[in-house]
Amino acid sequence: MTDPSQQSAPLTLAVDAMGGDNGPAVVVDGAAQAATGGLSARFIFFGDAAALGPLVAERAVLKGAEVRHAEGVVAMTDKPSQVLRRGRDTSMWAAVGAVRDGDAQAVVSCGNTGALMAVSRSQLRTIEGVDRPAITALWPTPRGRTVVLDVGANVEATEAELVQYAIMGEAFFRALTGKEKPTVGLLNVGAEELKGHELIRSAARVLREADPEMAFHGFVEGDDISKGTVDVVVTDGFTGNVALKTAEGAARLVASWLKEALTASLITRAGALLLRRQLVRLKERMDPSSANGGVFLGLNGLVVKSHGGADANGVKSAIEMAANLARRPFRDEVAETIARVGRRAQSVDRRGDADGEVKAAAV
Amino acid sequence: MTDPSQQSAPLTLAVDAMGGDNGPAVVVDGAAQAATGGLSARFIFFGDAAALGPLVAERAVLKGAEVRHAEGVVAMTDKPSQVLRRGRDTSMWAAVGAVRDGDAQAVVSCGNTGALMAVSRSQLRTIEGVDRPAITALWPTPRGRTVVLDVGANVEATEAELVQYAIMGEAFFRALTGKEKPTVGLLNVGAEELKGHELIRSAARVLREADPEMAFHGFVEGDDISKGTVDVVVTDGFTGNVALKTAEGAARLVASWLKEALTASLITRAGALLLRRQLVRLKERMDPSSANGGVFLGLNGLVVKSHGGADANGVKSAIEMAANLARRPFRDEVAETIARVGRRAQSVDRRGDADGEVKAAAV
Repeated sequence: MTDPSQQSAPLTLAVDAMGGDNGPAVVVDGAAQAATGGLSARFIFFGDAAALGPLVAERAVLKGAEVRHAEGVVAMTDKPSQVLRRGRDTSMWAAVGAVRDGDAQAVVSCGNTGALMAVSRSQLRTIEGVDRPAITALWPTPRGRTVVLDVGANVEATEAELVQYAIMGEAFFRALTGKEKPTVGLLNVGAEELKGHELIRSAARVLREADPEMAFHGFVEGDDISKGTVDVVVTDGFTGNVALKTAEGAARLVASWLKEALTASLITRAGALLLRRQLVRLKERMDPSSANGGVFLGLNGLVVKSHGGADANGVKSAIEMAANLARRPFRDEVAETIARVGRRAQSVDRRGDADGEVKAAAV
Repeated sequence: MTDPSQQSAPLTLAVDAMGGDNGPAVVVDGAAQAATGGLSARFIFFGDAAALGPLVAERAVLKGAEVRHAEGVVAMTDKPSQVLRRGRDTSMWAAVGAVRDGDAQAVVSCGNTGALMAVSRSQLRTIEGVDRPAITALWPTPRGRTVVLDVGANVEATEAELVQYAIMGEAFFRALTGKEKPTVGLLNVGAEELKGHELIRSAARVLREADPEMAFHGFVEGDDISKGTVDVVVTDGFTGNVALKTAEGAARLVASWLKEALTASLITRAGALLLRRQLVRLKERMDPSSANGGVFLGLNGLVVKSHGGADANGVKSAIEMAANLARRPFRDEVAETIARVGRRAQSVDRRGDADGEVKAAAV
């Protein structure tokens, strides 16, 4: 739990090489691709040494990487509670432990999300003032990327947790892009008849009053995510998870229609040929692996979840994101803002009690 | 509140011609297009007679249509409570009143959704056993259409309301398509670490035990909507509204990328020319107006909300849907199923209380 920002390079990344859908070779390949792409970091791979040793050795660009043997593997079907009780011999446990012990500044895993969250919370603990960690997603927009959180760490969020998500998301976006004042919106339904849950309205009021430094935009609606209306969209894990998967489904449907259109006849195939280069670019833009890597925010250590089905390119994206974030003073910034806003939120509370408008929002 | 199924034709439709973003001409045009397309129904248009009279008179296909003057118009910014108090002179109020009075078998309006819901509840009342009405959306899939509800009538839903939505959605899909046993799913998050809200799990149990006639699929995830995994997707109005708008946003982003690809250069423009016919078809498939028409389920009368910004083609879709549903014994089916399932749900409750597993779920 050292602060990576206060260290000079070199950076060390812990990589859980087991537990993904595509086996350890894809994970090692992703690391090799990141290294080839110029990433200056040392890797520690965790998993079956007999399998990993040769995979690492045969990739010259991974020279200097270490393999640490772990007997157990967390399966996608393992329950988090099982892993907490009986998973201390797994590659996931050991990889997260390397961050706890200061051997690495971040960990990347393609394994079971629920287990990774449980193992991370157990070993790294949450930042003081953070009730529960959240998971981020990067969402493509015409302007770049929007961060959405929480996309599935917690089914429900209290008002205080939404405020914490906003603070963590803002710091995350800043660390990722360097933008000094990321804009933040709370996901809501905007139709006149629906003014949203009471707790969302209270969270908005606390953010507006207790964190005046934040560029808080107010409410956004579902279609604002893909528009890029704000840099950070805050919501509970149920809504965020449904929104993410629904959008993926809609994009896939449009892609399947487009494929039908392109392959309908000889003439359309000729047209597709003329569009070839642009269609490759379109496919890349729609490729979720370019935005792979859900970051667990709110922990005393950096944990990046790569999609279980990620290919080497997806693993590379997750590793690059981990390295990018590990070099920023991200954790301390969150801790300071949470503490500052928490104090102010209590005074918003007191005034709220007095005029009967604002509900409790202890951060 | 006569039962349209027990009447022989002709069908009469009440059309609120005011309050849409594009004015009354578009609404009258939509009705004319439906009539030209073979719809056999009589129209009663509600609104400013001075404007509507000539619009209706100049369209020969609308011969026999009636215009009823209403002085007031509900604006998009009017609050539902205002309209309830002071909106009795509006075209919306009068059009819904025509269904209440048995002058028409359904009403179509492009106006303010919240006001239309309030006016409809006030005049038509909910079906016995239905706590609150829900709003449907039709969602394109590779297999046809999936119905999603609620997409915004109510921000939150109790367990009993989710059960009612499932019953109403099933009957709606049957009325719309003739499919005897529509499949029904409850929207949830499926990741291992997230087992969804307690109330969704209880609603699933009640549906499974108390309505064995229903083809209940269990839980579905966000991407299942566009896949067409089930015919009817049930969720609360907050999640449904976010999912709908998020998917629209994602589809629009992909469409904008595709447009960029097609217009990038002279060569890609030539390619686009070869794809012309298929691209028109793709555009039609992505056109939300073909699925226009949100139906208010759970009322003693049929109310169809057309999108405020709908063009004539969109209004036509909404009118056709209204006519299609008005000819089916839809309301009675919902009332009977709600009563039957309600009795059984109480016995699920009692057993639940006994074994401590199932929570209260009075339908």
